[in-house]
Amino acid sequence: MTISLRRARTIIRKALEKGRELNLKPLSVVVLDAGGHVQAFEREDGAAPGRFAIAHGKAYGAVMLGMSGSAQMARAEQQAYFMAAVNGVYGGQVVPVPGGVLLRDKKGAVLGAVGVTGDTSDNDAAAALAGIEAVGLVGEA
Amino acid sequence: MTISLRRARTIIRKALEKGRELNLKPLSVVVLDAGGHVQAFEREDGAAPGRFAIAHGKAYGAVMLGMSGSAQMARAEQQAYFMAAVNGVYGGQVVPVPGGVLLRDKKGAVLGAVGVTGDTSDNDAAAALAGIEAVGLVGEA
Amino acid sequence: MTISLRRARTIIRKALEKGRELNLKPLSVVVLDAGGHVQAFEREDGAAPGRFAIAHGKAYGAVMLGMSGSAQMARAEQQAYFMAAVNGVYGGQVVPVPGGVLLRDKKGAVLGAVGVTGDTSDNDAAAALAGIEAVGLVGEA
Amino acid sequence: MTISLRRARTIIRKALEKGRELNLKPLSVVVLDAGGHVQAFEREDGAAPGRFAIAHGKAYGAVMLGMSGSAQMARAEQQAYFMAAVNGVYGGQVVPVPGGVLLRDKKGAVLGAVGVTGDTSDNDAAAALAGIEAVGLVGEA
Repeated sequence: MTISLRRARTIIRKALEKGRELNLKPLSVVVLDAGGHVQAFEREDGAAPGRFAIAHGKAYGAVMLGMSGSAQMARAEQQAYFMAAVNGVYGGQVVPVPGGVLLRDKKGAVLGAVGVTGDTSDNDAAAALAGIEAVGLVGEA
Repeated sequence: MTISLRRARTIIRKALEKGRELNLKPLSVVVLDAGGHVQAFEREDGAAPGRFAIAHGKAYGAVMLGMSGSAQMARAEQQAYFMAAVNGVYGGQVVPVPGGVLLRDKKGAVLGAVGVTGDTSDNDAAAALAGIEAVGLVGEA
Repeated sequence: MTISLRRARTIIRKALEKGRELNLKPLSVVVLDAGGHVQAFEREDGAAPGRFAIAHGKAYGAVMLGMSGSAQMARAEQQAYFMAAVNGVYGGQVVPVPGGVLLRDKKGAVLGAVGVTGDTSDNDAAAALAGIEAVGLVGEA
Repeated sequence: MTISLRRARTIIRKALEKGRELNLKPLSVVVLDAGGHVQAFEREDGAAPGRFAIAHGKAYGAVMLGMSGSAQMARAEQQAYFMAAVNGVYGGQVVPVPGGVLLRDKKGAVLGAVGVTGDTSDNDAAAALAGIEAVGLVGEA
């Protein structure tokens, strides 16, 4: 089971709306499917050019490890060399901070992940959660 | 000058509509800015999971070289080792076939590129051009 | 939707039995899920040490592109530089020959892929198909 | 001397049984041979998609360095830059934590390694040891 393009679009649109509502800096939002593959992405005008890779890295680590960005950050703070090694095996594609949010259905199955970057990590996560709630799924930040 | 998110969204939406109109296989469409950085991407339901990288590779080569996918393909057919070497310097991120379309304004300035994948390379290019025409820009396929 | 470990084990066991029945060289068999991630793998005694990567490359390309090994080989023979470029965007992980078999359910949805290596590409594909038939799924070689 | 597929299968099956007995999270188990090459792998249903790379990284470092995961972790905690450098020379493929268990015969010769991931590192190691004991070999965790 995975995420449809229709739902991915809504998640992104609502996450960006939340960013405007909270007056956050320009955001970039990616939705990955249950295999960690890109379903949809948008970068707001004014965001730095390299934001795709940061948004992707937050969401990719969440899917591949089955751990939210907050859980990854806690592990990185306890055991930095472990998260560094994890990044080695994943080709350096993991960004272990909040803003990487697991996307689950009501039964808890992982459907993918959302990655948001542009403001503080906590604000990025809040925008992701707003998008996820808008499609009736459960976000684990 | 570059491409706005609003225009990138419209390009993607119209390219996907063209695909449905022509009854093409599920498409994936990326829009890159004038620096070759991802602005927006969507993958239709039913497309293979790895389509982001192909769409990106078509558009990335177009921006980085300032050459359309068709021009890159012609060069690859004349001089395969040259396009292989180009790929070496660009980290293997270039897919030199039609479906990578340069995005120009009316004066000819490059604003970015569109990459489409999923059907034949020529149909992919036709979908990209339909999206680009919808925003009043000029596509070089 | 994806493939269970129980089914993956049966596919591998039956593919290896087919290899013994046909008196093939020692085989290595991988089953990837719908996201291209390893579910199960076995390498028979006497197989060369590097066979995991070949089996993986056959199955990985099939999932990521949604194309069987035979279809990838045909494309490589028509347009070698295209498959070389595809390999660039997938980190050199694609082996475009028979023995990479798409795994579909009765409705045609891709559940993953099976990769077999060790004998001729056609015999590798025959072993993969035998394993897939044993679990009531449809293989596209 | 190395590990047979028959023994590798038993190690994996018994490690997974131990995980169920201890009610651990879904586990992924790899067995590498004396050259650090994959002999067999299984990922339980419900495990995150990226678990192959973590299991492999735990076992690969053990074989390549001839050091258990615990010994690697101790070294990483004393001298993080050394394990980071080791990862550089091994292409980032080493995950230096418990759950990477050296596989020795009764005389102490290294036959390969087992890598387990999914629960806590210590529980992962316990599952690996249970699998190794089941085939009458000696595990160094």
